[in-house]
Amino acid sequence: MSNIVVQKFGGTSVGSEERIAAVAKIIKKASEKDSLVVVVSAMSGETNRLINLANSFGENPSKREFDALISTGEKVSAALLAMALHQIGVEAKSYTASQISMRTTDSYSKAKILDVDGKKIEETLDAGIVPIITGFQGITDSGDVTTLGRGGSDTTAVAIAAQMKAKRCDIFTDVDGIYTTDPRIVPEAKKLDSITMEEMLEMSGQGAKVIQIRAVEFANKYKVPVRVLSSFESGNGTLITLEDNNMENGLVSGIAFQKNQIKFTLHGVSDTPGMAYGILGPLSDANIEVDVIVQNVSVNGKTDFTFTVSKEDEAIATDVINTVKESLEFDDLLIDSNIAKVSLVGVGMRTHAGIASTAFKALSEKGVNIQMISTSEIKITIVINENNVDNAVKALHTAFKLEE
Amino acid sequence: MSNIVVQKFGGTSVGSEERIAAVAKIIKKASEKDSLVVVVSAMSGETNRLINLANSFGENPSKREFDALISTGEKVSAALLAMALHQIGVEAKSYTASQISMRTTDSYSKAKILDVDGKKIEETLDAGIVPIITGFQGITDSGDVTTLGRGGSDTTAVAIAAQMKAKRCDIFTDVDGIYTTDPRIVPEAKKLDSITMEEMLEMSGQGAKVIQIRAVEFANKYKVPVRVLSSFESGNGTLITLEDNNMENGLVSGIAFQKNQIKFTLHGVSDTPGMAYGILGPLSDANIEVDVIVQNVSVNGKTDFTFTVSKEDEAIATDVINTVKESLEFDDLLIDSNIAKVSLVGVGMRTHAGIASTAFKALSEKGVNIQMISTSEIKITIVINENNVDNAVKALHTAFKLEE
Repeated sequence: MSNIVVQKFGGTSVGSEERIAAVAKIIKKASEKDSLVVVVSAMSGETNRLINLANSFGENPSKREFDALISTGEKVSAALLAMALHQIGVEAKSYTASQISMRTTDSYSKAKILDVDGKKIEETLDAGIVPIITGFQGITDSGDVTTLGRGGSDTTAVAIAAQMKAKRCDIFTDVDGIYTTDPRIVPEAKKLDSITMEEMLEMSGQGAKVIQIRAVEFANKYKVPVRVLSSFESGNGTLITLEDNNMENGLVSGIAFQKNQIKFTLHGVSDTPGMAYGILGPLSDANIEVDVIVQNVSVNGKTDFTFTVSKEDEAIATDVINTVKESLEFDDLLIDSNIAKVSLVGVGMRTHAGIASTAFKALSEKGVNIQMISTSEIKITIVINENNVDNAVKALHTAFKLEE
Repeated sequence: MSNIVVQKFGGTSVGSEERIAAVAKIIKKASEKDSLVVVVSAMSGETNRLINLANSFGENPSKREFDALISTGEKVSAALLAMALHQIGVEAKSYTASQISMRTTDSYSKAKILDVDGKKIEETLDAGIVPIITGFQGITDSGDVTTLGRGGSDTTAVAIAAQMKAKRCDIFTDVDGIYTTDPRIVPEAKKLDSITMEEMLEMSGQGAKVIQIRAVEFANKYKVPVRVLSSFESGNGTLITLEDNNMENGLVSGIAFQKNQIKFTLHGVSDTPGMAYGILGPLSDANIEVDVIVQNVSVNGKTDFTFTVSKEDEAIATDVINTVKESLEFDDLLIDSNIAKVSLVGVGMRTHAGIASTAFKALSEKGVNIQMISTSEIKITIVINENNVDNAVKALHTAFKLEE
């Protein structure tokens, strides 16, 4: 195990000159104990400022140019953080994706990391200098700049941690850890000291906005322990563990929820082989992430096929469905934009029965009607009316005694 | 002669989304006739915004990080200009210094261009795409980002024009050409259709802020014809010619002047070998550009050594002189910060006598006292009281009939 720790600081953590100076102090302190590699996001607001500039030139700017444009934000914060470290006597050097050969696929704005050359980082560490690396971006084989999509800096940090065989990747953000659910809805929500990768994957996908899901997948694949903690206050945050070492693990670890969802139902669609692909294939081609998918048993060769997508994809998804209507026959397209998802997550679910019934009992007592149910080994997701979300989350949090 | 024209757009030319759209139209029109390579500066105000951010972290930020920081401005404008061109149907691609291997020395913030790889530019042109290149910056052999100093985008443009054997380099700015003198002082000042490189070198050095002197030197060395013109209004600008083709050339082409100068006189300095170097060497080491230098004949082994520098270098220059005082003996250090330089420039001077006497007669008639005189083959520079500059420039402009 190396002595390397990767620290990643998000946009709000480096959102002003004062915040950058505060982050420099965190790095200085940590550098006395560990060998640090730092990854930074753009100063909060900067990426949006750049996007607004781009929007002056049409709705669909060239993706290559768009990435070249918005990747400048991290270059700014990386250089500033290096300066802030110099000011308090810490040697540091900023590096761009191109300078450390952070190679990605060439799918602009949602590029995937292929590999990273650890040599320059290693040389820098060997010289007693803290490398500050621009998050969120990479380069293609032909040297064009790419970006990894929103929140991609988390993935950058984990990728570098994997490459450098770091003992841990610390994701600094503006919350102090992962909670059993959103404390704004349930004031009794409790910070978790640790959570398993699997649970985190399910939580992340369901809208726990603390860390990007791709980063957790990456961490899972390369077995990098990740810690989520605050750059605004001290504390140990929440450790995302590789394995579930906690024998006393509760049944449910947390409750995630996500509003701004939209539900499409293809009513009376022919239940023939290839039907699901005929719907989901074109949606995937249009880069729409489909979330909960439910298909009921078929009656007389016809069935109802229902799926949810993020509300911002409504227009494109509707277009896609109308296009496939020519090849797929269905009676009606029903669209419900007044829905939300709530998920119970916990590795404890694997070995315990009765979770679903406890949950449904709690919800029915609050008069919450369940529209869709989808389950996996460690997660139960329900789709309900958006207006019921707060009540549902509170009821479930109490039912599973998460405040204890 | 190739059909390539390099167009460079300065900070005010791309100072807003509207300006970038206007520049895109200029490029579109010119691209119908010539093969274009475009070089851009940062949007006006952007470099200062970045410098202000850097200033939060001490007075002397690391030059490497400083360059990494401020070089982001051109990356932003290059990507935006490419988008603006796409919007009006012109294919374009932005390139950073790293992407076209614009190699420089590693003296950060004042790097000098070593060479540039024309291959990517050529391929882009061959594909019918307009390459948009970030001005002002380069990379070192180890891949670090450098900048060329203020106004360096002009030099970038000329370097690329030289590499690509362009038939011309057009420098777009916010003035419509080079004038016989500053029209704000002399309303009758006339725009020159052409000016020789040599004259331009002298004009530029004396404060004609239209184009950077290094760029003209570069153009001179590689025989690149340069044209200075406005991106705000149409017109042919002023062509900076390689040779003086104009038989009817007047005696004086223009009058340049520069305020904010300061004059140092080492009174009663020992006139021994190495004295001048003993003064100018340390000033050069401190990166201070010394301008007019005058040394009078010596009397009794002692002389007066006088030079001028820009007023902003006053503090450092004074420090340097006080340091050399230990090794060089002199009686007094006289500092006059109320001076200005005025220069008559013209290749016609070479072959005509009597320029100096005409000039001095005009000045004496206006009661302007001359403090220092320095002459070269195509220039006469005088140092006068700063308050006399406007009168002196007007008198000289009339005396040499420049308004005709």
